[in-house]
Amino acid sequence: MIQGIGAAAGVAIGKAFVLPNWEWSLPDTQVNPVDLAKEFERLYEGIRTSKNEIEFIKKEFREVVGPEESSIFDAHLAILDDPVFMSEIRGIIERQYKAAEVAVKEAIDHFVQMFDLLDDEYMKERAVDIKDVGNRLLKHLLGAPEVVLPSDTQPYILVAKELSPSQLVHLNPAYVLGIVTMMGGKTSHSSIMARALGIPLVAGLENKLPSPIQTGDMLVIDGETGSVQLHPDETTVTNYASIRDKQQKKREQLELLATVEAVTKDGVTLRLAGNISSVKELKVALKYGAGGVGLFRTEFLYMDRSSFPTEEEQFDVYKQVVEQVGDGSVVIRTLDIGGDKHLDYFQLPEEQNPFLGYRAIRISLDHKDMFKTQLTAIVRASAFGKVKVMFPMISSVEEVQAAKAVLEEVKQELADRGVPFDRNLPVGIMIEVPAAVMIADLLAEEVDFFSIGTNDLVQYVLAVDRMNEQIAHMYHPYHPAVLRMIRMTVEAAADAGIQVSVCGEMAADERSLPLWLELGISELSMSPQALLKVKHRALNTIASEARTVAKACFRHRTSLETEEKLSAFVRRSGIVLEAAAKPQEKSS
Amino acid sequence: MIQGIGAAAGVAIGKAFVLPNWEWSLPDTQVNPVDLAKEFERLYEGIRTSKNEIEFIKKEFREVVGPEESSIFDAHLAILDDPVFMSEIRGIIERQYKAAEVAVKEAIDHFVQMFDLLDDEYMKERAVDIKDVGNRLLKHLLGAPEVVLPSDTQPYILVAKELSPSQLVHLNPAYVLGIVTMMGGKTSHSSIMARALGIPLVAGLENKLPSPIQTGDMLVIDGETGSVQLHPDETTVTNYASIRDKQQKKREQLELLATVEAVTKDGVTLRLAGNISSVKELKVALKYGAGGVGLFRTEFLYMDRSSFPTEEEQFDVYKQVVEQVGDGSVVIRTLDIGGDKHLDYFQLPEEQNPFLGYRAIRISLDHKDMFKTQLTAIVRASAFGKVKVMFPMISSVEEVQAAKAVLEEVKQELADRGVPFDRNLPVGIMIEVPAAVMIADLLAEEVDFFSIGTNDLVQYVLAVDRMNEQIAHMYHPYHPAVLRMIRMTVEAAADAGIQVSVCGEMAADERSLPLWLELGISELSMSPQALLKVKHRALNTIASEARTVAKACFRHRTSLETEEKLSAFVRRSGIVLEAAAKPQEKSS
Repeated sequence: MIQGIGAAAGVAIGKAFVLPNWEWSLPDTQVNPVDLAKEFERLYEGIRTSKNEIEFIKKEFREVVGPEESSIFDAHLAILDDPVFMSEIRGIIERQYKAAEVAVKEAIDHFVQMFDLLDDEYMKERAVDIKDVGNRLLKHLLGAPEVVLPSDTQPYILVAKELSPSQLVHLNPAYVLGIVTMMGGKTSHSSIMARALGIPLVAGLENKLPSPIQTGDMLVIDGETGSVQLHPDETTVTNYASIRDKQQKKREQLELLATVEAVTKDGVTLRLAGNISSVKELKVALKYGAGGVGLFRTEFLYMDRSSFPTEEEQFDVYKQVVEQVGDGSVVIRTLDIGGDKHLDYFQLPEEQNPFLGYRAIRISLDHKDMFKTQLTAIVRASAFGKVKVMFPMISSVEEVQAAKAVLEEVKQELADRGVPFDRNLPVGIMIEVPAAVMIADLLAEEVDFFSIGTNDLVQYVLAVDRMNEQIAHMYHPYHPAVLRMIRMTVEAAADAGIQVSVCGEMAADERSLPLWLELGISELSMSPQALLKVKHRALNTIASEARTVAKACFRHRTSLETEEKLSAFVRRSGIVLEAAAKPQEKSS
Repeated sequence: MIQGIGAAAGVAIGKAFVLPNWEWSLPDTQVNPVDLAKEFERLYEGIRTSKNEIEFIKKEFREVVGPEESSIFDAHLAILDDPVFMSEIRGIIERQYKAAEVAVKEAIDHFVQMFDLLDDEYMKERAVDIKDVGNRLLKHLLGAPEVVLPSDTQPYILVAKELSPSQLVHLNPAYVLGIVTMMGGKTSHSSIMARALGIPLVAGLENKLPSPIQTGDMLVIDGETGSVQLHPDETTVTNYASIRDKQQKKREQLELLATVEAVTKDGVTLRLAGNISSVKELKVALKYGAGGVGLFRTEFLYMDRSSFPTEEEQFDVYKQVVEQVGDGSVVIRTLDIGGDKHLDYFQLPEEQNPFLGYRAIRISLDHKDMFKTQLTAIVRASAFGKVKVMFPMISSVEEVQAAKAVLEEVKQELADRGVPFDRNLPVGIMIEVPAAVMIADLLAEEVDFFSIGTNDLVQYVLAVDRMNEQIAHMYHPYHPAVLRMIRMTVEAAADAGIQVSVCGEMAADERSLPLWLELGISELSMSPQALLKVKHRALNTIASEARTVAKACFRHRTSLETEEKLSAFVRRSGIVLEAAAKPQEKSS
């Protein structure tokens, strides 16, 4: 058994298909000076084709993985517009009469070598980007085909040195049983993609294999534990097949729960809503029984385009979402860019610590026209259903007041124009900056609801960027400081008589349920994929027992104690799927 | 009157000396191929001289401004070792037979142009560095003299497009009355340097002058407000001269307070200690009457060298500090690197958000040998005076326990070796991560004292990187969330019966005094320069009045209300310097 990094959960059993590395043979003929113009034409045609292809892959990637991760392709597009890189290529053609593909290859090598030498992580990443884009351009200039995958009649486990996002996006999940890569880790783009596609992936096997895997070798991989078995014996295959089938059966049973209400065994009802970025994601959320949208991330509407979306464009989307949700409510969060999210057409300053920088409401309040356009679209949509508006990254009373003032202006203008809207449109804020927790009592006087964004809150409270692999192990949602902050927020909301929900990833972690029950939080919003799992957990939980467990957690001194206690509670009540699979009828 | 950016406080009145820009005339002769070796020799000699010069400037800069800011020169040194830059220069000499200075100039232009084109702030900064280093190298190759400043018989106000740190470090503060620059702002290196030297500086005048300032023009500048008056009339000069003289007189009177105890008018005694980075800074702190060292930043010992300092090297410094402080205590903070502080010889990962990354105790606990070496040196120094050890960036109980376990190991080993040390060596932690505040009650059970690091705490609580100009205005130490966190910390310390002090910049802000009096914080540690000002404030404050003011501040909903209230309180009791200048005798 070989131990790699479990990067996308699930068991896969099957034969290996080993992806060969890209190899090019380049012509070494000189270009006839009279044909220079033709050679340039070839170069430009190759660039255009590459750009179109990147745009296409970017779009596909965004739809599968989400808009946040697709920005890597913007960097790739930028390289093909980079004047230095391009003038280097043109110079080689022009002055040395070399073919376009040779010039591209030499320019790639030159830049990659230069950036590698600089011994700077940032530059090394740029080098990887240049290599990736350059190879794509080479492929088009050489007319080389994409590496051919096995035909779609024989499922396989894909084995590769590393996979680029563009390679992954073209895989057919029905035939790729699993993936094994030599490089990479949990946070590499291919891992994120594999998780989104539900394909098990084990990464980081470099230097761990006794001999290279060959196409046709039998493999068993476990993307949860990171184990890989080469040439497994029959018993191993049987054992893993049984695990795989149980996982499959569990998935099918879970899907039966979509129409069931989330009620604990002793009658506590939870309202589960979906976090969405698009109408497409809403459909998934509704399919899995979301009772509404607890977080509409509107960044999506602003990304992957060349200018700000108009009021009409936004209104159309908000209205669609509101109408499709029907009776449930839709919490629309105003634009949250900055941090790790950028727009092509809106230049933000380069920042040393973007998470502690210019983002979200800080940007909106500085760009009132843009902010008013969005608020107008949101308020107009409120005529068609239960809309709530929510401001992100609030850290002071003044910010809420300023944002509400702009909202009032918008409502006044719509009233003057005679446009219908919900005059009691509820206004809420994200609680994600520690300051907001500390003054939750003051903020509660200003708004109708709180939504606790645990992802950012945990990062700020612990001073841990969880995307930083060096310290990702310190990112602890069950840290006592985090639990106390959540409790402070809930108490402030209760004192003021306003609603509080949780919309961070903690809400999607079924182990957290006892905490919500103890705190009296009954509204949870999560990624559509997590809805059934959390509902299943609720159906199998006795709230009074869970509360006893949670009470102990709030007294723990360390994250580990709480995590162990909550995990044990899940395990104890875990094997009751059959019971839950007898659906009660949804009461309303 | 022209309005610039006030970047270093103080009034200056005098004649302008306008610094000309560097201009070079380059030889265009070809190098005889047989002389190539000689040309390379010239190049290498120029590089060596440039490196020595940069090392020298770096050392001077560090002594004046402090070790944290001197890292810019490491970037400069790295460029002279950069293989890409150097091979470009060599290539031009070798293949085009150009003189070394011409090759350097062309290489600078090439890289600067390339980096500028990339349209990336990071790369643009690298371009500025390359230009600066390249010009230095050019200067040595051409044998061009430094720009000559007026002889030291005639004080002047220096006017320049921009000043490089290396130009500033050579100025004689006795003759440079003030500085005016066209570029730059409050956080540019020249501004930081000017503040450290006590020279008034107004920056950012580009495009604001009706006509260029000429050498010999009369100027009045106010580095506090940023105003510049060109050809001022007599009344203006008289008015500003009177302001300048009052400021000077106030400085002199303050110095009389060094030996006076910091006691409020109604008898509340404060203990004021110094934040230091070196023995040199300790001398300043003692001169201004520090009763001890509240924060010894040991990073200094690790910077500006090529390997980790040995136990003996550290012990020597700690012992010196402890002995010079005498009766007072010395709080030694273990290494706090990462964030914006790096060591040449210790590679840290490139991070997206270094402030939320791998730093301080997180690094020490991962590098136990290094940590043990430092702790051993600290514990040994405890045999020579009152040493306290302090861990930075603590965010959990586990971290404190892990750090204490290493400390115990060190003590055991020293005991086994029969080396004397203070067996009751107090152990404390910085309270600067929000999590530490939230679990201050749990942490208080583990340690002997807290020291509140307000700088980082404010940044994390508000999610505002104050070095980020875009949002620096949101960095509010008087934010109600910050005040509540400080109060939580103080209450947890009081319940556990342990000491709590403040060592961030808030301690150096005299306006904060009412807060400390209300909270019962009697230990403040600050930069040596702030000691007399804060002491003066204490001597002129009636604690009972101050507490009433502070009580209101703790009820405020916004930063602004508190800042205004505290500023007003200082103004009300501000004009009582004469009284304070009659020093009471120090009682012990």
